Amino acid sequence: MHRWSKLFVPTLREAPADAEVASHKFLLRSGYVRQLGAGIYSYLFMGQRSINKIIAIVREEMNTIGQEFLLPGIMPSEIWEQSGRWTSMGQNMFRLQDRKGAWLCLGMTHEEVMTDIARKELRSYKQLPQIWYQIQTKYRDEPRPKAGLLRVRQFIMKDSYSFDLDAASLDESYNKHDQAYRNIFTRSGLQFVAVEADSGAMGGSQSQEFMVYTDAGEDLIASCASCGYAANMEKATSRLSAVTEMEPTGDGLPELVHTPGKAAIADVAEFFQISPASDIKTVAYMAARLSDTGKGKETVWEPVVVFLRGDHFVNETKLMGLVKAGELRPMNGEELEKYFHGPAGYLGPVGLTPVKSVNEPGLKVIADLGLENRKNMAGGANKLDYHFRNVTPGRDFSWTLLADIRNVAEGEGCPECGSPLKVAKAVEVGHIFKLGDRYTESMGARVLDPNGKEVTPIMGCYGIGIERILTASIEQNNDANGFWLPRAIAPFDVVVTVTNISDASLLAAGTEIAEKLEAAGFDVLLDDRDERAGVKFKDADLVGIPFRVNVGKKIAEGKVELVTRASALSVDLEIAELLPALVVASETK
Amino acid sequence: MHRWSKLFVPTLREAPADAEVASHKFLLRSGYVRQLGAGIYSYLFMGQRSINKIIAIVREEMNTIGQEFLLPGIMPSEIWEQSGRWTSMGQNMFRLQDRKGAWLCLGMTHEEVMTDIARKELRSYKQLPQIWYQIQTKYRDEPRPKAGLLRVRQFIMKDSYSFDLDAASLDESYNKHDQAYRNIFTRSGLQFVAVEADSGAMGGSQSQEFMVYTDAGEDLIASCASCGYAANMEKATSRLSAVTEMEPTGDGLPELVHTPGKAAIADVAEFFQISPASDIKTVAYMAARLSDTGKGKETVWEPVVVFLRGDHFVNETKLMGLVKAGELRPMNGEELEKYFHGPAGYLGPVGLTPVKSVNEPGLKVIADLGLENRKNMAGGANKLDYHFRNVTPGRDFSWTLLADIRNVAEGEGCPECGSPLKVAKAVEVGHIFKLGDRYTESMGARVLDPNGKEVTPIMGCYGIGIERILTASIEQNNDANGFWLPRAIAPFDVVVTVTNISDASLLAAGTEIAEKLEAAGFDVLLDDRDERAGVKFKDADLVGIPFRVNVGKKIAEGKVELVTRASALSVDLEIAELLPALVVASETK
Repeated sequence: MHRWSKLFVPTLREAPADAEVASHKFLLRSGYVRQLGAGIYSYLFMGQRSINKIIAIVREEMNTIGQEFLLPGIMPSEIWEQSGRWTSMGQNMFRLQDRKGAWLCLGMTHEEVMTDIARKELRSYKQLPQIWYQIQTKYRDEPRPKAGLLRVRQFIMKDSYSFDLDAASLDESYNKHDQAYRNIFTRSGLQFVAVEADSGAMGGSQSQEFMVYTDAGEDLIASCASCGYAANMEKATSRLSAVTEMEPTGDGLPELVHTPGKAAIADVAEFFQISPASDIKTVAYMAARLSDTGKGKETVWEPVVVFLRGDHFVNETKLMGLVKAGELRPMNGEELEKYFHGPAGYLGPVGLTPVKSVNEPGLKVIADLGLENRKNMAGGANKLDYHFRNVTPGRDFSWTLLADIRNVAEGEGCPECGSPLKVAKAVEVGHIFKLGDRYTESMGARVLDPNGKEVTPIMGCYGIGIERILTASIEQNNDANGFWLPRAIAPFDVVVTVTNISDASLLAAGTEIAEKLEAAGFDVLLDDRDERAGVKFKDADLVGIPFRVNVGKKIAEGKVELVTRASALSVDLEIAELLPALVVASETK
Repeated sequence: MHRWSKLFVPTLREAPADAEVASHKFLLRSGYVRQLGAGIYSYLFMGQRSINKIIAIVREEMNTIGQEFLLPGIMPSEIWEQSGRWTSMGQNMFRLQDRKGAWLCLGMTHEEVMTDIARKELRSYKQLPQIWYQIQTKYRDEPRPKAGLLRVRQFIMKDSYSFDLDAASLDESYNKHDQAYRNIFTRSGLQFVAVEADSGAMGGSQSQEFMVYTDAGEDLIASCASCGYAANMEKATSRLSAVTEMEPTGDGLPELVHTPGKAAIADVAEFFQISPASDIKTVAYMAARLSDTGKGKETVWEPVVVFLRGDHFVNETKLMGLVKAGELRPMNGEELEKYFHGPAGYLGPVGLTPVKSVNEPGLKVIADLGLENRKNMAGGANKLDYHFRNVTPGRDFSWTLLADIRNVAEGEGCPECGSPLKVAKAVEVGHIFKLGDRYTESMGARVLDPNGKEVTPIMGCYGIGIERILTASIEQNNDANGFWLPRAIAPFDVVVTVTNISDASLLAAGTEIAEKLEAAGFDVLLDDRDERAGVKFKDADLVGIPFRVNVGKKIAEGKVELVTRASALSVDLEIAELLPALVVASETK
């Protein structure tokens, strides 16, 4: 049992003005955390107590499927150079030099170290599979830290890595994580959804995110209430409704039309009296790809042009995965001139000569699936103030790839069942990912298979953001006065509030009740502070404790009040009824 | 219960050639750790399991006296500039710039962050005392990492900080830590000794180290078997036996003697036919001191000269504390000429004009207490090839300070009881320290006292090296075949070794025994690997588990063998006797 009078819980009436999302406000107001710098926080007593409970749940579940390690937080650059990520991590990686001038980085993820251990220690298929995890502070030089603990420069992560001989075994490691993660989030009391996620850019084959819906989230999830389909925007697809095509003109072949000043999609649609869905949108990029030049890997910028329906938007993560690009930027005027011979606003597909494969150097053209089987569309003519009509994809222009590279929009058909999709904001709390041989291959991990043949083991990587469980829970469980956490992750299960400690009998009764609850297995905070009852109630409502027991005047009749924070319902109970009532209430919660 | 066949415990027959101390060798051989870089280690399953048990003990004991926080590992430079340590930490601090060019450092200690929280949040004496602790990875750019986990660049530390209104309250916080630390080390099964330690340089008033004797240690402890006195070399003092003084010559005043080529103490002693104890040794330093120049603090180099008995050695830590220096270096020839007008080898005290106080700029002369009440000594004459005789300290030369600045030597008298002191190597596992207002003053923490007056709270800081508990334990408990840890910190309490798993009944019996022991509260490792019994016994002896149960052929007679690793004693037991025997054995261990 803890006595509030002895604790440091610096609650605040107001949150700083820059705190916008609920978790940011309440983590500060409740004295859970204090900010030290941009994206850098200190966890105080109440915050750390909650974090410790979350870590205990994560550790317990992870111990059922894997082995706990603890890897270094600082790492020599060499292993990152071997994997190729010393360069590709860019400015997100904190780098430093030691006193001898050697380059180190701060750990933002640990594929390299785990693979280094694997390549030195694993020799035979008999040593596989392995699942190795750790719970550790990660550092990332986030460009725009904000939203309290949601976007920070250091955070605690449970990261794990699996090594398997073959795909079937990796499936098992992946599925074990899927189940362990569901157990963890369920035990933490989160309302979560598992969604399909993109795995392209990392070279992986399957990936799933665990998301919690909240407007404070920065990810978008498309989901279907009918069939349960859910995917993040980088992965989500949809069925499109049929579009009424334009009537062809003349011989039905592309016809040059003077469209002075009609550069925007909306203007073109109005000009032709068509829906934007019948105009072809052109988006021209330069993509940075890692290319083997013979003398080492080098970043090469290559042209990538996307065509899609005028009412659709490019999903750049999908695009980067498809063309294996680490980075995208818009083409500049000179590049547009070079590849289109035309100006922005009048770019179009007719007349381009795309390469046949995304691996070939040269102009890559990606057509979105929404253009498949369409005809008689409008599109820029690569000539100032001119568009074509009667443009039929496939007949009038070709592509390197026809693929899904657009953002799904709310109301489009679910890819599984056709019902309208919902799109909503969410925050990611976990991610599981099949990596394949991305690291084992580049870093030279080899084992002998049962036939004595050297093979490259394949990997999975899996992460949970420890603080994300706390912040997501606060986002899901708050009102104007504060927040409430599920018992499993709350710093205390119950606060016993003595309304007036100058009444010695009240304090004695409160202390006895607190001790009794503690002895029964509850984690109890006794509010024995010399403060007015109103102050104590306000603080108790603020700091995330799911239950409050008020010990006040009614003690004369042998009664206390049990308040459930989530529902704000209170009930007067005989002291003898309190413990059973709390047991029932905390089990149903 | 864990099955060894499913675990990754990469034991090695041999340790790398550069592993010299026992803990380094055995941590590698047992698969507890692997090295990633200089002073940077990954903790694998067995090592992390032991670390977790140590952390649990530390956390449990610390929770009885303080509140757990978790502070950032990266910190903005500003708070370190405010405390003055951004400069004084020198190259030991890892520094880096973020993507915006702002300077950060990696946490090597957290006085600054804790004081920052205190100055922002504490307003009244009513909020005192506070004890705040954390368990966290620290980073220090150790110049010569070595000895495995003993001297590393990152390590886990439990650090705590107390804030008190006055000295009496600080005494309580300090004493609480003293007791908690004793509990922690006792529960961890360490043979430790608490020794007086230096607190001068940090401006503190009291300090104590918790040390474990081992030849792998780099600290020296002077201790007295008679009265229990113990202090580290930076703090230890001693009683000196009387020295037979030289007879005076002439008028008894300093007499210049031609001593050609007699620069060394031994040569001078031989020349005068005296003991080195009657020759005055001169050691000339330049000391770096932080000085307030009016426009900010600046490092100033000042001359500091030490005189002591020819057979004594300067303790530079004591000296730095006395003269408040952050760094010392020997005087160069030019400086010797400037302050002594004489050459090295013939330096002496006669003719110098020391300043009156260590705070005064100018030549500071420190005479060791061993010169007090001495007379007719020999000493350099600050003239090539000449010494004085008849030099009587106090009469023939004066000093800024007369103080203990020498190293204690084995056999000198205990300062408490006079019995001969022992000097032995040890490794530090904990340190408690009264800081006073060093940080609260410089960083501007103020609270109102009961009279409504603004006062500066005072601090203590306290540290435990988590890995040090493990390494010290290995240093204390090892033989040629491996090591054994006390049950409280061992990765497993007992290994149940099935000598031959191809015998299904043996494996079944072993599994049943392992499950039974696990159910009785033991942390059990079942060695179910398909290996020869000899390999299994060797591995079991290596990896630090205190008890082994061999399940072999004697199972036919209903018997197993219980081996106690520390004593190597084994005993055949009926299966029913095993559990009670293990309970007794593990309680006595």
